[in-house]
Amino acid sequence: MKKILLLNGPNLNLLGTREPEIYGNTTLDELVESLARRFPDVHFDHFQSNCEGALVDRLHAAWREGGYAGVVLNAGAYTHTSVALRDAIAAVGGMDVVEVHLSNVHRREEFRHRSLISAVCRGVICGFGTESYALAVAALVR
Amino acid sequence: MKKILLLNGPNLNLLGTREPEIYGNTTLDELVESLARRFPDVHFDHFQSNCEGALVDRLHAAWREGGYAGVVLNAGAYTHTSVALRDAIAAVGGMDVVEVHLSNVHRREEFRHRSLISAVCRGVICGFGTESYALAVAALVR
Amino acid sequence: MKKILLLNGPNLNLLGTREPEIYGNTTLDELVESLARRFPDVHFDHFQSNCEGALVDRLHAAWREGGYAGVVLNAGAYTHTSVALRDAIAAVGGMDVVEVHLSNVHRREEFRHRSLISAVCRGVICGFGTESYALAVAALVR
Amino acid sequence: MKKILLLNGPNLNLLGTREPEIYGNTTLDELVESLARRFPDVHFDHFQSNCEGALVDRLHAAWREGGYAGVVLNAGAYTHTSVALRDAIAAVGGMDVVEVHLSNVHRREEFRHRSLISAVCRGVICGFGTESYALAVAALVR
Amino acid sequence: MKKILLLNGPNLNLLGTREPEIYGNTTLDELVESLARRFPDVHFDHFQSNCEGALVDRLHAAWREGGYAGVVLNAGAYTHTSVALRDAIAAVGGMDVVEVHLSNVHRREEFRHRSLISAVCRGVICGFGTESYALAVAALVR
Amino acid sequence: MKKILLLNGPNLNLLGTREPEIYGNTTLDELVESLARRFPDVHFDHFQSNCEGALVDRLHAAWREGGYAGVVLNAGAYTHTSVALRDAIAAVGGMDVVEVHLSNVHRREEFRHRSLISAVCRGVICGFGTESYALAVAALVR
Amino acid sequence: MKKILLLNGPNLNLLGTREPEIYGNTTLDELVESLARRFPDVHFDHFQSNCEGALVDRLHAAWREGGYAGVVLNAGAYTHTSVALRDAIAAVGGMDVVEVHLSNVHRREEFRHRSLISAVCRGVICGFGTESYALAVAALVR
Amino acid sequence: MKKILLLNGPNLNLLGTREPEIYGNTTLDELVESLARRFPDVHFDHFQSNCEGALVDRLHAAWREGGYAGVVLNAGAYTHTSVALRDAIAAVGGMDVVEVHLSNVHRREEFRHRSLISAVCRGVICGFGTESYALAVAALVR
Amino acid sequence: MKKILLLNGPNLNLLGTREPEIYGNTTLDELVESLARRFPDVHFDHFQSNCEGALVDRLHAAWREGGYAGVVLNAGAYTHTSVALRDAIAAVGGMDVVEVHLSNVHRREEFRHRSLISAVCRGVICGFGTESYALAVAALVR
Amino acid sequence: MKKILLLNGPNLNLLGTREPEIYGNTTLDELVESLARRFPDVHFDHFQSNCEGALVDRLHAAWREGGYAGVVLNAGAYTHTSVALRDAIAAVGGMDVVEVHLSNVHRREEFRHRSLISAVCRGVICGFGTESYALAVAALVR
Amino acid sequence: MKKILLLNGPNLNLLGTREPEIYGNTTLDELVESLARRFPDVHFDHFQSNCEGALVDRLHAAWREGGYAGVVLNAGAYTHTSVALRDAIAAVGGMDVVEVHLSNVHRREEFRHRSLISAVCRGVICGFGTESYALAVAALVR
Amino acid sequence: MKKILLLNGPNLNLLGTREPEIYGNTTLDELVESLARRFPDVHFDHFQSNCEGALVDRLHAAWREGGYAGVVLNAGAYTHTSVALRDAIAAVGGMDVVEVHLSNVHRREEFRHRSLISAVCRGVICGFGTESYALAVAALVR
Repeated sequence: MKKILLLNGPNLNLLGTREPEIYGNTTLDELVESLARRFPDVHFDHFQSNCEGALVDRLHAAWREGGYAGVVLNAGAYTHTSVALRDAIAAVGGMDVVEVHLSNVHRREEFRHRSLISAVCRGVICGFGTESYALAVAALVR
Repeated sequence: MKKILLLNGPNLNLLGTREPEIYGNTTLDELVESLARRFPDVHFDHFQSNCEGALVDRLHAAWREGGYAGVVLNAGAYTHTSVALRDAIAAVGGMDVVEVHLSNVHRREEFRHRSLISAVCRGVICGFGTESYALAVAALVR
Repeated sequence: MKKILLLNGPNLNLLGTREPEIYGNTTLDELVESLARRFPDVHFDHFQSNCEGALVDRLHAAWREGGYAGVVLNAGAYTHTSVALRDAIAAVGGMDVVEVHLSNVHRREEFRHRSLISAVCRGVICGFGTESYALAVAALVR
Repeated sequence: MKKILLLNGPNLNLLGTREPEIYGNTTLDELVESLARRFPDVHFDHFQSNCEGALVDRLHAAWREGGYAGVVLNAGAYTHTSVALRDAIAAVGGMDVVEVHLSNVHRREEFRHRSLISAVCRGVICGFGTESYALAVAALVR
Repeated sequence: MKKILLLNGPNLNLLGTREPEIYGNTTLDELVESLARRFPDVHFDHFQSNCEGALVDRLHAAWREGGYAGVVLNAGAYTHTSVALRDAIAAVGGMDVVEVHLSNVHRREEFRHRSLISAVCRGVICGFGTESYALAVAALVR
Repeated sequence: MKKILLLNGPNLNLLGTREPEIYGNTTLDELVESLARRFPDVHFDHFQSNCEGALVDRLHAAWREGGYAGVVLNAGAYTHTSVALRDAIAAVGGMDVVEVHLSNVHRREEFRHRSLISAVCRGVICGFGTESYALAVAALVR
Repeated sequence: MKKILLLNGPNLNLLGTREPEIYGNTTLDELVESLARRFPDVHFDHFQSNCEGALVDRLHAAWREGGYAGVVLNAGAYTHTSVALRDAIAAVGGMDVVEVHLSNVHRREEFRHRSLISAVCRGVICGFGTESYALAVAALVR
Repeated sequence: MKKILLLNGPNLNLLGTREPEIYGNTTLDELVESLARRFPDVHFDHFQSNCEGALVDRLHAAWREGGYAGVVLNAGAYTHTSVALRDAIAAVGGMDVVEVHLSNVHRREEFRHRSLISAVCRGVICGFGTESYALAVAALVR
Repeated sequence: MKKILLLNGPNLNLLGTREPEIYGNTTLDELVESLARRFPDVHFDHFQSNCEGALVDRLHAAWREGGYAGVVLNAGAYTHTSVALRDAIAAVGGMDVVEVHLSNVHRREEFRHRSLISAVCRGVICGFGTESYALAVAALVR
Repeated sequence: MKKILLLNGPNLNLLGTREPEIYGNTTLDELVESLARRFPDVHFDHFQSNCEGALVDRLHAAWREGGYAGVVLNAGAYTHTSVALRDAIAAVGGMDVVEVHLSNVHRREEFRHRSLISAVCRGVICGFGTESYALAVAALVR
Repeated sequence: MKKILLLNGPNLNLLGTREPEIYGNTTLDELVESLARRFPDVHFDHFQSNCEGALVDRLHAAWREGGYAGVVLNAGAYTHTSVALRDAIAAVGGMDVVEVHLSNVHRREEFRHRSLISAVCRGVICGFGTESYALAVAALVR
Repeated sequence: MKKILLLNGPNLNLLGTREPEIYGNTTLDELVESLARRFPDVHFDHFQSNCEGALVDRLHAAWREGGYAGVVLNAGAYTHTSVALRDAIAAVGGMDVVEVHLSNVHRREEFRHRSLISAVCRGVICGFGTESYALAVAALVR
């Protein structure tokens, strides 16, 4: 059974509990469950934090634990500001990390067009809502 | 009785304990007490942290708890670097957040002239020392 | 009795006579009267002009006349283009000048995010509508 | 049966015939066949051109013909230089266009980090080799 | 007898009445008198205004009146912001205009390093206090 | 009979009195007369000033007076520096303002390529000499 | 009888067939007919292409054929990206080319504010919808 | 006998038929003939197009055909705008491509100083008129 | 006995456990021990964290505790993004902080060339591997 | 008798021997003689070099020798590129250095508008041909 | 017999004595001899210096001596930093100077893409190793 | 016995003879002597010049002579402007060059924050006064 880490950054804990007309009614927990049902051969570990350092810590832990087919990372706001996260992804180079975004960040503010982490990730998927996660998992397990 | 959250960012815990000729002798605790005396009809919750993620967490908690007339936010250095905090303020959109600064940031280094959070706050007050906080409270309770 | 100069720049003479859904129904005259009622111990002098030079002249005159507790300045568009006004504020350095804006300028066009006068003012207050003026007066009289 | 347009831009006609150690041995024709086998319920139309105008023409034709579930677009070099293609995508707004790239463009030259078309596409998928196309099709048919 | 126009821009009317330790005790009137004594063969016309348009008007008037050996122009803050003044100087091309500054503007804020008018003036003299004016007159009468 | 305001900015008062090989022999007065003859069904009000504030004042007055089919505005140098004029045009939004230039500003200095007012005008016409005004009038009366 | 070339660039072939609330119901063919009726003394040649090279070719052909009073050019997206078209206009220098745009491009995205061709055109007209074409023809035939 | 491809971009078809005082009287055909006479041991294939895509196509064709000693490429305006051509040159990496220009592009507009293709060409020769081609051929055959 | 704080930022906890050909086999703990052996007269306190706020907290604590000869700080990725850390260093101004880096950051990506903390540190040492720490200690104890 | 050092930078040795219609027929030697005649109470030392280091050396020597009323420096091209010369001027701070230029550098290429040395000089005089030197001497001896 | 000056800048004295796999085994002396053999009708003068001023001096000397068919200049690093050399080339305008480089500078660091001297040279040849010199000589003697 | 070259750039010859309150009383000679005493096992060669070319020459000479354990280079102002020195350091790649600065350059003017030579040096040490040299020697001899 393959093992994948779902890593979610700042403010994603609010998913599904507000502005449902934009983000839908799916909470982060329901999203994880939905992925588990859709990919029955994959074991999902999930971690969310609003703290940059905690996300770095979790990535390190996964690398030390080993055995992961890859990481699905929605770094949220840290996508645009965190060199620490970039360095952590580069440091755990043996693991495939896929960068995902719910929205199409290129339609939003100028400062969201620059990602500090894309260059060290395996690939990028953005703009498909929660389906972005499923596509990333599909990319990793294939 | 109105409820207001005072949210203070990095290095503001040192207020009043050093360089009194610049920042005065008022500590952060004394500042909170002074506001409480001056606005007897307002209940103040106070939180300070040097951690970006902890500030985001606290803002989320206030929004979930509800009942706040608004937030007085001195984000300190994170004013200039934190997209995470910006997104958190936008996410709790139903709450009025007033950005305050003790000093007139426009007199300082170039990189302090850019605020990532102003655009999602209700308004900005800077340059009046600890009086900036009182003006922000006055703006929120009126 | 304290004396404060209210100095308003270009296009502010139209306040209250158009787009009331945005700017409200309060005209500039009514705003001055309202401040006078709210701060009975303050004498307000008021001057509005669409001409950069006239605003500089008025600031000089106040400084020569003396006795002002401070100036509440909404420089409007000149905030972003007038080095002359900046130099005038610096020249009358003994007087406290507070920069105010009705709207939160940081939500508007990029060129409105840069203020040429903030660095020489005592402080900045923006985003609270006509209440911005009252907060500025409160800051000056305290 | 769903209908999808595969639209490939400049130099992609060389796919599979050179530098197989980088791009693999799959030619563009084989890629289309492989997608057809993998998505038996989808009818694929395919068009490749090195000419910016021809790509715009083909997009117009698809929109006039109608009935497409979406477009998978690898605009190649025109991703970074073509406002004409951007306008065409915006003009056929009723059709979902997914931007794909074989390589992770963020690892390459600075000028490849800016995409003129991302903001008018539904989403972006890059970095998964020919699998990027399959993920885009999966996103469109779901 | 030669005729020279002394044209002074915003805030220069305050010369000599404040910060004498920096700018000296010489007022603008005394400066004109001093020049008149030092250059007995020159007739000086003098005009100061804080208004950009008035300075343009005066330059036009001098050109229409004719007979000037040149203009000594301290445009003050308008040096850095006024395309109108630049166009006026270019328009009265037959008259030599010398740009002067009391202080060495290159030691001051970055935005004061750019002059919009230098390129259309005859020459530039800065940094010699009120002596800058005398040097400019000497340059024009020679 | 339709009413149109011709509003001319700095240095345009010199039109026709100098450099006739470039700007022709037509003075501003003759231009107005020529337009009056060519458009007998239109009443032209005309105002020229070298002062930014006076141009703003005149635009306000026209809006308050009402009844104008539109404004033909050659803002001259203020095109490139005046946010105040831009705000005035936006404020009198119910009136169509057409931006005109005698010369093709895009052939001149870099700083003349940026117009602060284009975005709030109805349209822009430049490069046709005095004919630019006639085209603007034609656009407004149609 | 005068001869004018109407040259239209990418995506203008879609005019009138979509988003009629924005662009109206007039197709490109109807626009040409309408101009022909309005200017009975002018013979119009018309060419539209989505291909940069084809537009260059057509301009060359007109120059070789000779006899044109001028060209009305709506280069669409190529306005902002085509140095080739700019060079072609410069190369056929004996022909007057007028740049037109349906919309006011200065109200749109930043990258649309820069035109590569304005500096080599006779003049620019933008923002008057299909009337922009008529004004350009009027400018050329006068 | 060596084989060299002469590839000429937009507007170069006009060579020799206009502005002879600048570009001389040599047409593109005469230039090819002249090179053929001067280098009797070289077989020249020649292709000119105003279309970016056609130039890419021709380069691909030469690479597929094989046997070329190199390519002499005057990309004209596409030098400064075409990433597609750059990618094509990189793709046919086994062939030496020499970039040539008739004029010294560094004496012209700022945007002509940046070449998108230089970095993937073997070398660059510019400023020697039609002699630039002969020097490039000499470089390739040696 | 002198007391020195060794403060290490994000990802430095991985030192020695990976990519030994680049970073060597020395772990962070071994580095501290090695320094202790080499400087027997110095007491070393050591703290590593991936969290920006925790590093700020530790610096504050050292300042409150007092008695430190200085701080050797390898801020890792926060070197380039943390204004909070910069402010903390400035706040504890009485303590000498030496910025160190294992690698020569000037050979790496452009964004690593800018340090937000250098200006408030005592000095900078970079490029000597773990020896950078020893040099920093030597600088502090001398 | 006062002593002044005339220091001339690169290419100024060619003065008067070429392009006399621009620079006049005065050679550098004649210029020095002319100044000596005009200022009989001043002793002039003169040094010209095309070498940046030699100019720095000469400035040092003058400072060590002492007794100079000041330095008239035309640094030529080094004005725009030499930090070494700037540092030398700052180092010999007790001596007044006046920056002069023959031409009005602000009318020339963009890169000549930036002077690295103005900020450390006493003042700047440019645009008056060889008269610039005489004005500088007059400024120093007064 | 024609006379040509070979002028080589900083670090070119090391040619052939190191990194032969990159630069070949040809020393600068051997390169000059090789050119002499290949162009028996040309007399070559050769000068190399690491000093900017010495290169300027040599160019002046050649111009004063006269009789040169031209100069082949490899300015090395001074290509990117020396305004003095640029001015010298412009000053000796009657002599043709050809800029050469051994390597294709456009493949190297960003700061090497800008040449300060190209605009005043006759033409530029780069990327052909020592053959670049021979091509430059061929261009000059033809 | 190890051999180290101390290479000092412009204005460092003035060390110790002026502004002793800033730079101390140590002259350059005394600094060399002090290093010699402190590192008795090291032979120091020393060279200082204000000329960029002479510094390049000396570096070349050291490389040709061979046997150096490394170079301690304080390039002074040339740190920020000399590509020639950078190329020389890269050329003598087999020798370790350590960049040192007396002051913390990051606290000074913006243009001093960019070093052209750091990327080709072994490491950088700045901010420790003359102790910076000793640390560099320690780094080289270890």
